[in-house]
Amino acid sequence: MRKLTVDLGRYSYPVLIGENILDQTDLLKKYINTGQVMIVTNVTIAPLYLDRVLRALGDIRAGEVIIPDGEEYKTLETMDQIVTRLLQNKFSRTCCLIALGGGVVGDITGFAAACYQRGVNYIQIPTTLLAQVDSSVGGKTAVNHQLGKNMIGAFYQPRAVISDVSVLKTLNDREIQAGLAEVIKYGLIRDPGFFAWLEKNIVRLLARDTGALVYAIEISCKNKAEVVTADEREAGERALLNLGHTFGHAIETGLGYKDWLHGEAVALGMLMAADLSCRHGWISGNDVTRITNMFSTAALPQKLPAILAAETMLDLMSVDKKARNGQMHLVLLKGIGKAFVTNDFDRIKLAETLKQFSSAAGQH
Amino acid sequence: MRKLTVDLGRYSYPVLIGENILDQTDLLKKYINTGQVMIVTNVTIAPLYLDRVLRALGDIRAGEVIIPDGEEYKTLETMDQIVTRLLQNKFSRTCCLIALGGGVVGDITGFAAACYQRGVNYIQIPTTLLAQVDSSVGGKTAVNHQLGKNMIGAFYQPRAVISDVSVLKTLNDREIQAGLAEVIKYGLIRDPGFFAWLEKNIVRLLARDTGALVYAIEISCKNKAEVVTADEREAGERALLNLGHTFGHAIETGLGYKDWLHGEAVALGMLMAADLSCRHGWISGNDVTRITNMFSTAALPQKLPAILAAETMLDLMSVDKKARNGQMHLVLLKGIGKAFVTNDFDRIKLAETLKQFSSAAGQH
Repeated sequence: MRKLTVDLGRYSYPVLIGENILDQTDLLKKYINTGQVMIVTNVTIAPLYLDRVLRALGDIRAGEVIIPDGEEYKTLETMDQIVTRLLQNKFSRTCCLIALGGGVVGDITGFAAACYQRGVNYIQIPTTLLAQVDSSVGGKTAVNHQLGKNMIGAFYQPRAVISDVSVLKTLNDREIQAGLAEVIKYGLIRDPGFFAWLEKNIVRLLARDTGALVYAIEISCKNKAEVVTADEREAGERALLNLGHTFGHAIETGLGYKDWLHGEAVALGMLMAADLSCRHGWISGNDVTRITNMFSTAALPQKLPAILAAETMLDLMSVDKKARNGQMHLVLLKGIGKAFVTNDFDRIKLAETLKQFSSAAGQH
Repeated sequence: MRKLTVDLGRYSYPVLIGENILDQTDLLKKYINTGQVMIVTNVTIAPLYLDRVLRALGDIRAGEVIIPDGEEYKTLETMDQIVTRLLQNKFSRTCCLIALGGGVVGDITGFAAACYQRGVNYIQIPTTLLAQVDSSVGGKTAVNHQLGKNMIGAFYQPRAVISDVSVLKTLNDREIQAGLAEVIKYGLIRDPGFFAWLEKNIVRLLARDTGALVYAIEISCKNKAEVVTADEREAGERALLNLGHTFGHAIETGLGYKDWLHGEAVALGMLMAADLSCRHGWISGNDVTRITNMFSTAALPQKLPAILAAETMLDLMSVDKKARNGQMHLVLLKGIGKAFVTNDFDRIKLAETLKQFSSAAGQH
């Protein structure tokens, strides 16, 4: 088992990564100091792993909230349902929530924990690759609003993150690919050596080789933990983790959080960020080719959804959280492993990038 | 103008108290560093003070969200409406909210600020005595859930609190009395000298004497600031501020947040806490008489609402946030100016207290 620490003073916590670590007696219990435990999971994950977590809890009897599966349920209403269950069970401020699922379950459970009685403990047990390498670490919690993704949320750290790679076996290929998008992201923004490793090992990862997965998850979490430690509330460096996300969130919002997975939208967003960076001369055509090849091997999208025109994308991007005083800020690249935030980019070049990736463009 | 500081490191902020300070040019603007300002107020306050605040903002053009008046609107739905307005106006993470109103407006605006894009700035301009002496200071934000008051919220500090006593002139007597309940609370929990001052000056306060009000608000805020500085997240001393609140919240929840004002419910809760403390021999009958006289002079309630039986109260009290691992904790008194938290009290005596204050008891 690998163990990293997200170092945030008295809010520090461990990230544990390994195969079948969920079955290790007392691993989970170590982070629970209450008899009031509520597991939040969804209809897909519950039949697969709920019993395993209940067994890991031993003599602690836990309640469960099983929500529908899908980003479209990451809403205030679902959060309210979790709170209702906690109140019906008379759970106090010392209770503990467990998020058992992917990014949606983790985000909404974390936000419910942040808000319930102004803050209770929670533990992340991520069950998708994307959640294991990204959303479960760093304390970003949120629900969506119909006008924008993750617009209602909190920075609120878990007590522990337990990533068991054995649960990745039940994912479908699209979910693995979408998770790899965020893995590749760490290489692109700050770890060129990791990017080079990924170029050699992407096929092993797609085949779910356990050793490759544990290594990729560890290096991803290590990168994320370093960034979060330096900048918990995203005043500076942490914003770099949003590479591809302003484009990606616009895609997700435009699709009503349906059809595309988050990682797929972010992957295309990173390609667009690379393209826009290249149009400014900040990265070489060769870098763009390496990036495009990587995403292509991972079978990630290369074009915008047909229903999203370039103008629609632009409008959706302007309400993104990375905007400041109405100015759009983007994370762009000055090389593989060198991301930066800027609002000093050419709007005409942005329009060209959006047009370049629009589905219509591909049909000519 | 009086100025206090709530000292919380990089989250420190000033509390400004005085007459007509809202009209001081540039006082409000000093705490705003953005062009994106949204004032949240309600239908009662807007016609009275909205223009005054807009004038104080000078060349900053602010938007406004006007919510219905009443505790029953302190809900996730109303918070969602505020967020909708922010998103419709494409407000970014650097925007600033202004809460112009009483405790409901302050709590919900603070919570919206805590959650919008995971946290934006906000300023409190409290317009009730209760909000000026209590809810606007200390960063407790929340909305209600149908199963419990303030069950969904955050600890989230404002950038500044601006308390203009001139706005208290338009309150009705009940609102002044309800505010005085929280003023008296500071005397009871930690400031016996202030309690003695209040015994001499309660009539001046009821008559809204400006000098007496400024002094009472300053000493109340000073006490609150000291407590919050020592214990921002209510791990210890801050819980003492909840004297009367476990009883009071049960009353408010039982009434569906209608009919009684928060201060009225808390006032009766403090009387019940004093009665229960006396039944344990922790305070003298003479202390109870002084406390009862004070609340009686302030025309605050002496009996539970007729629809709330002792058993109902007990059930409602058991889900209070002060409960820990299912154990009910109460703030009780070991003298005037000496509150403490305990779960080591006699349940039979609690039942006697609840019966003593039930309306049925008074009719025999």
